[in-house]
Amino acid sequence: MTTASRLLGELADTGRDRSRGGYSRHVFDAAEGELRTWFAEQAARRGLDVETDRNGNLWAWWGSPGPDAVVTGSHLDSVPGGGAFDGPLGVVSALDAVDSLRAKGFAPARPLAVVVFAEEEGGRFGVPCLGSRLLTGSLDPDRARALRDPDGVTLAEAAARAGHDPERFGRDDEALGRIGRFVELHVEQGRGLIDLGSPVAVGSTVIAHGRWRFSFTGQGNHAGATLLTDRSDPMLPAAAVVAAARRFAAAAEDARATVGRLVPTPGGTNVIASTVDLWLDARVPGANRTRALVEEISGEARSAAAAEGCAVTVTEESYSDTVTFDAGLRDELNGVLGGVPALPTGAGHDAAILAAHVPAGMLYVRNPTGISHAPEEFAEAGDVDRGASALAEVLEHLST
Amino acid sequence: MTTASRLLGELADTGRDRSRGGYSRHVFDAAEGELRTWFAEQAARRGLDVETDRNGNLWAWWGSPGPDAVVTGSHLDSVPGGGAFDGPLGVVSALDAVDSLRAKGFAPARPLAVVVFAEEEGGRFGVPCLGSRLLTGSLDPDRARALRDPDGVTLAEAAARAGHDPERFGRDDEALGRIGRFVELHVEQGRGLIDLGSPVAVGSTVIAHGRWRFSFTGQGNHAGATLLTDRSDPMLPAAAVVAAARRFAAAAEDARATVGRLVPTPGGTNVIASTVDLWLDARVPGANRTRALVEEISGEARSAAAAEGCAVTVTEESYSDTVTFDAGLRDELNGVLGGVPALPTGAGHDAAILAAHVPAGMLYVRNPTGISHAPEEFAEAGDVDRGASALAEVLEHLST
Repeated sequence: MTTASRLLGELADTGRDRSRGGYSRHVFDAAEGELRTWFAEQAARRGLDVETDRNGNLWAWWGSPGPDAVVTGSHLDSVPGGGAFDGPLGVVSALDAVDSLRAKGFAPARPLAVVVFAEEEGGRFGVPCLGSRLLTGSLDPDRARALRDPDGVTLAEAAARAGHDPERFGRDDEALGRIGRFVELHVEQGRGLIDLGSPVAVGSTVIAHGRWRFSFTGQGNHAGATLLTDRSDPMLPAAAVVAAARRFAAAAEDARATVGRLVPTPGGTNVIASTVDLWLDARVPGANRTRALVEEISGEARSAAAAEGCAVTVTEESYSDTVTFDAGLRDELNGVLGGVPALPTGAGHDAAILAAHVPAGMLYVRNPTGISHAPEEFAEAGDVDRGASALAEVLEHLST
Repeated sequence: MTTASRLLGELADTGRDRSRGGYSRHVFDAAEGELRTWFAEQAARRGLDVETDRNGNLWAWWGSPGPDAVVTGSHLDSVPGGGAFDGPLGVVSALDAVDSLRAKGFAPARPLAVVVFAEEEGGRFGVPCLGSRLLTGSLDPDRARALRDPDGVTLAEAAARAGHDPERFGRDDEALGRIGRFVELHVEQGRGLIDLGSPVAVGSTVIAHGRWRFSFTGQGNHAGATLLTDRSDPMLPAAAVVAAARRFAAAAEDARATVGRLVPTPGGTNVIASTVDLWLDARVPGANRTRALVEEISGEARSAAAAEGCAVTVTEESYSDTVTFDAGLRDELNGVLGGVPALPTGAGHDAAILAAHVPAGMLYVRNPTGISHAPEEFAEAGDVDRGASALAEVLEHLST
């Protein structure tokens, strides 16, 4: 078994979610803490120097930390009930690449680092790419510290409990200034590489995407004693938004709109809800089309809420514009790998956050199920190997 | 302050729900355990003998337990985030009535008991009137023991942890055989007594009602990388059921249909759900109309699920037919109270479960907000007094 597959196997028991299936590994929880410890041990075993930056991201350095470094890596957190590859594949492939470069006696001319970004999925505090957004200054640290998880714990509290100092959160020019070029390897999250018949692709673009919270307020009441005409039931406009999201997205070319999280309060069977919160994930290629779609859906939310005597607020919790990865770096990757396909994606990544600041690129590894963010996510062992060796070739080329 | 209001005040800090507002007191949880202890102390202070029956219901006896007893009482559990009066008002009014009968030197000719039924709301294990259904044999004890709360704990496990023997669950002819007549006092849960301008009413009927679980199964996947045409998103048919429940209920005279609980799994913002469970509460006056309404809504569930490539199962978790309270007992209550209004209700009660076995009746106390199962539920102190004194008059009459 190759190093990458073996290392993935070492993570198989950490953070399993018995009720949802798959894995639930969220920033600063117990499972994620185990993964951080595991990563630090793996790095130490390879003689890499490990440091945690101001925003809770982990760095393992081959050579002295310094400018013009070649950086690779991904994340170890998951969505709730997620798969085994989304995030960890990039980390274990980076460690595998270090091993194979070492084994052939390669000595990098530039510093080389493996990074593990914190809370890429936003699975606990709602904002995806939390660590890279804080690092690059695209997320206000005051807003970040006040973010709450579903149990009401703030990010500041969770960070402090895990031994981090949330007062140090914020744009980290020192850490950012060291990155010469960044390449993230990631499992493909759709059917792109199945259709292309290739084990590996280079990333071309990331579709604009964001998250919006719709909060409906009605009047909690008795489900049996309250006449329909006396109701202000926030579940009605919430359901209208679910339907509208699909309807408006289907009418907009290549758009995606999803409601995967919806929470009625108090949530009793014989109780008309007093509030319903739902989160809309919307993504449309092209300029301004994502927010235009959300505005259409918000219009439906307002009219459905008014019809039921409910109030609604819509809050943009995160937004990322379309990202086109650095053309020069893409050409280099393509040259090294002998012309692999270029793949656009609807999935966000830390590499796309960094792309506004440094030349960044991505390698994708084929996922034969086409399914991600679910236990069925997969990569064949042969494709895992091909990804790790492609990453080693790329790192060797860039750090020579 | 009268006894009933003072006793209600003693419960004000037990089981408050900081996140939902109001109270969350569920069978065999810590708050409900405190309330059981409080009730036993109150009974002991009054020289009443307390016993717990085979199904976890509490009984406090004035006089030796025996046949032809006059029984009153209600419940101390709540819906999630419920009000202060639903349940406790009937219990504190019963204790108040015992005090006022004692104070006037009354000696009952028949045994008199105050009962606290377990899990009237079904807030933890889903089946309402759990204690009275088990007692009367209308709920199979094997099915009851296997019921699970939202954390996956079975009723058998929860009962055992709270010191009860779940193997003893089941029809209790000894306990049932003692009840001569049963009268439950309860806060009104709609606007009936506001409209009638009366502090107290006698119950006439309880509308047929039940709970149905709709479980939709689709394919969990990535919210950004999965094209709309590749999706089987169970949130879509779930939303269609919410809309259909309102639409079909509005078309059926005096029908009520509610979805107050809806749980997507895994529940991530950037994750297409793999399953969605929702619970439909439906209530329609008249024979067979409730199940006919549910069948209409189920048809919509099946067609919406099929359109999205999802599977759906519909399970009846509880059903109670229309109950008309004992006419003779109603006439007696009316005679004692000097002609108060008769009130039909859409809310279920333990008295309606017992009504199939013993003469049972209800007294309602006006709720000036017309809101129940929510923190706004209320009764004015003067109306609380009037209810407690009406109950004392009734108990005196019935036990003379």
